[in-house]
Amino acid sequence: MTDTDSTQTTTSRRSLLGWGGAGLALGAAAAGGAAALTRTGDSAGGASPAAEAGAAIPFHGAHQAGISTPVQDRLHFAAFDVTTDDREEFVQVLKDWTEAARRMAAGQPVGEGGYGGLPEAPPDDTGEALGLKPSRLTLTIGFGPSLFEKFGLAGRRPEALVDLPKFAGDNLDRNRSGGDLCIQACADDPQVAVHAVRNLARIGFGKVVVRWSQLGFGKTSSTTPEEQTPRNLMGFKDGTRNIAGTESDRLEKFVWVGEKDGAGWMTGGSYLVARRIRMHIETWDRTSLQEQEDIFGRDKGEGAPVGKAKERDEPFLKAMKPDAHVRLAHPEANSGATLLRRGYSFTDGTDGLGRLDAGLFFLAYQRDVRKGFIPVQRNLATDALNEYIQHVGSAVFAVPPGVRDKDDWWGRTLFAKEA
Amino acid sequence: MTDTDSTQTTTSRRSLLGWGGAGLALGAAAAGGAAALTRTGDSAGGASPAAEAGAAIPFHGAHQAGISTPVQDRLHFAAFDVTTDDREEFVQVLKDWTEAARRMAAGQPVGEGGYGGLPEAPPDDTGEALGLKPSRLTLTIGFGPSLFEKFGLAGRRPEALVDLPKFAGDNLDRNRSGGDLCIQACADDPQVAVHAVRNLARIGFGKVVVRWSQLGFGKTSSTTPEEQTPRNLMGFKDGTRNIAGTESDRLEKFVWVGEKDGAGWMTGGSYLVARRIRMHIETWDRTSLQEQEDIFGRDKGEGAPVGKAKERDEPFLKAMKPDAHVRLAHPEANSGATLLRRGYSFTDGTDGLGRLDAGLFFLAYQRDVRKGFIPVQRNLATDALNEYIQHVGSAVFAVPPGVRDKDDWWGRTLFAKEA
Repeated sequence: MTDTDSTQTTTSRRSLLGWGGAGLALGAAAAGGAAALTRTGDSAGGASPAAEAGAAIPFHGAHQAGISTPVQDRLHFAAFDVTTDDREEFVQVLKDWTEAARRMAAGQPVGEGGYGGLPEAPPDDTGEALGLKPSRLTLTIGFGPSLFEKFGLAGRRPEALVDLPKFAGDNLDRNRSGGDLCIQACADDPQVAVHAVRNLARIGFGKVVVRWSQLGFGKTSSTTPEEQTPRNLMGFKDGTRNIAGTESDRLEKFVWVGEKDGAGWMTGGSYLVARRIRMHIETWDRTSLQEQEDIFGRDKGEGAPVGKAKERDEPFLKAMKPDAHVRLAHPEANSGATLLRRGYSFTDGTDGLGRLDAGLFFLAYQRDVRKGFIPVQRNLATDALNEYIQHVGSAVFAVPPGVRDKDDWWGRTLFAKEA
Repeated sequence: MTDTDSTQTTTSRRSLLGWGGAGLALGAAAAGGAAALTRTGDSAGGASPAAEAGAAIPFHGAHQAGISTPVQDRLHFAAFDVTTDDREEFVQVLKDWTEAARRMAAGQPVGEGGYGGLPEAPPDDTGEALGLKPSRLTLTIGFGPSLFEKFGLAGRRPEALVDLPKFAGDNLDRNRSGGDLCIQACADDPQVAVHAVRNLARIGFGKVVVRWSQLGFGKTSSTTPEEQTPRNLMGFKDGTRNIAGTESDRLEKFVWVGEKDGAGWMTGGSYLVARRIRMHIETWDRTSLQEQEDIFGRDKGEGAPVGKAKERDEPFLKAMKPDAHVRLAHPEANSGATLLRRGYSFTDGTDGLGRLDAGLFFLAYQRDVRKGFIPVQRNLATDALNEYIQHVGSAVFAVPPGVRDKDDWWGRTLFAKEA
């Protein structure tokens, strides 16, 4: 083979790979643009429990995907700080991110150059997701309170986006808290989620910088009750009574911001509370079965509430100990307050004392933080579980409505002049 | 329902769950003991590329599983230090670990009490893997050089288990290096791998303590060439020419310790080098495609060697730049030295400068470290890749032969008097 032949072969192969030819088989859809690639029929806001683990979740919709859509197995969550003070430059990041997110959700590489492009330029995509399936990737953006101190946005901050008060037992690490922005990347393949966050960070280089990030290896709540309920690292089923993606009434009531809720630009959006909850699992593991079950208010094997036989039997709160976790967290004990939970188990190696640095990265969506997380967390001040857990990171974000179509972009309702 | 009814129902359910009844459907095999639960026909040492992702890998065999067996998707690796100075007590840990590992590999809970047991005692199993499939879990134990300074083992240390020299560019963190013991837990479900390490740490409480641990979210090398070759976080295919689990000749030559190799107790074992390799991915991502391909000596899309068309074409080393990674790492450049690689990509959040703490957790098995990793790593001193990577953690372990049957245990050939 001559040098010339070699170059031609390589260019041709790259061109093919740039459009997802290696195993993705996007075929004709690739030429038709990203919108044609969405592989399930319903909108991004709805639940698609039947979606295959490898499939694509629609990026466009009234609500952002990654909230009521089925919870994927793995998480990469990143909080960013904005380093530019140029509003137009920041808006361009949001537009570039939207375009990249749209492509990645469809299983395409970032940028039209794909993995190829000019030899003298860095590739448009970092490459490690080439050949992997879309893996139900969802990318969800949120805006933190500190963003509203920039770009003349002070008057646009929603009242519902309050700073969280200090709760009993909090031991928050500044380096794992806050952030001007967040990206929640969920996928069934962790390499797909990591690839997405990394490429958004790369696109934002010089304008935004990662403040902290968190990997989650296993979901602890589900929005698809017909699935087996996942277990948290305490070994208990978690999220049995979570809001399902198909429960439109509860979603409207507890999750989606309505037109009359205040900040109009948030209509169709939601509010996200993220808490890194360290579990003292070595201590927990030496606790008796009876005590563990008393603390939760459910049995460990089946997950049935105290005195009941089955996981989904209605809990009888008064049968539980007064400080049982389920009893204190239940809507009945919190004036009806209900959260859509989407948390993940994490293990980040070991601390200096040989203990696993492990726990729950709690993610909860709600229509108003003042009527959701705050009253529930206050009520958990006497939770028997507190002996075994500690909140070590905290953040809150306004999660804007969905991207409607290929001309729309993340944050348009907040930043665009006509909005 | 009366209190008495409730108790009976609960006990019965627990008893069932304790034997894996919830979705595992081990059925009659459960009554037949762990040995009957292995779901593939060949021995632990052989490759089972056709094994389903959820299946069980046989625990017993001439070699430990987790070396030449197909590489699973996820990793939890833990290094332990021994804190007891009582030899019999430590041997009991090894026996208890073996029994727990045998059960977990088969998809069973640790301990015969399962998730139930006495209410006043801690459960035998922490519970978070209940309802999950065996997920091809393999658990592989290794003994570090420092173990041989204890328990009168000095005379038993194999000559091939050398302390690694300092290599050019090393920037090792003591807290991510060394260890008296290691456990490599690999599975297709990360929750299954994390559950396994956590339960072994729990069983060893007071006798051993975790020194450091590492999660890997995506495999970067495969021992099953018929699979798609995985990509590392630099976006390149990795492990194209790795030793396959079916290549008995190369396994005998490069991986398994032979009878005449010195320490007789290691016959059928191997030596493991673990290196935490941080990648400066933000810098890498701003490097041109041409430079990236020059550095590796392969093209990014297909993975073909310089001047060749296909990934598996034989590399022509002289066509590559003198400092190309593939050229310097190739057996031809290292007197034939060949490693079985089994590494994983990791992302451990963000460092203090907003950069992803990400890279490759390199794991390589070999018959003799002096003829495997050491000469190859020395030859990589001039590797062009070194500008973008840094070795920050290091450990080496003697990995004993497999557990032969249900009466055998990890380390018997080293510790038992008759050995």
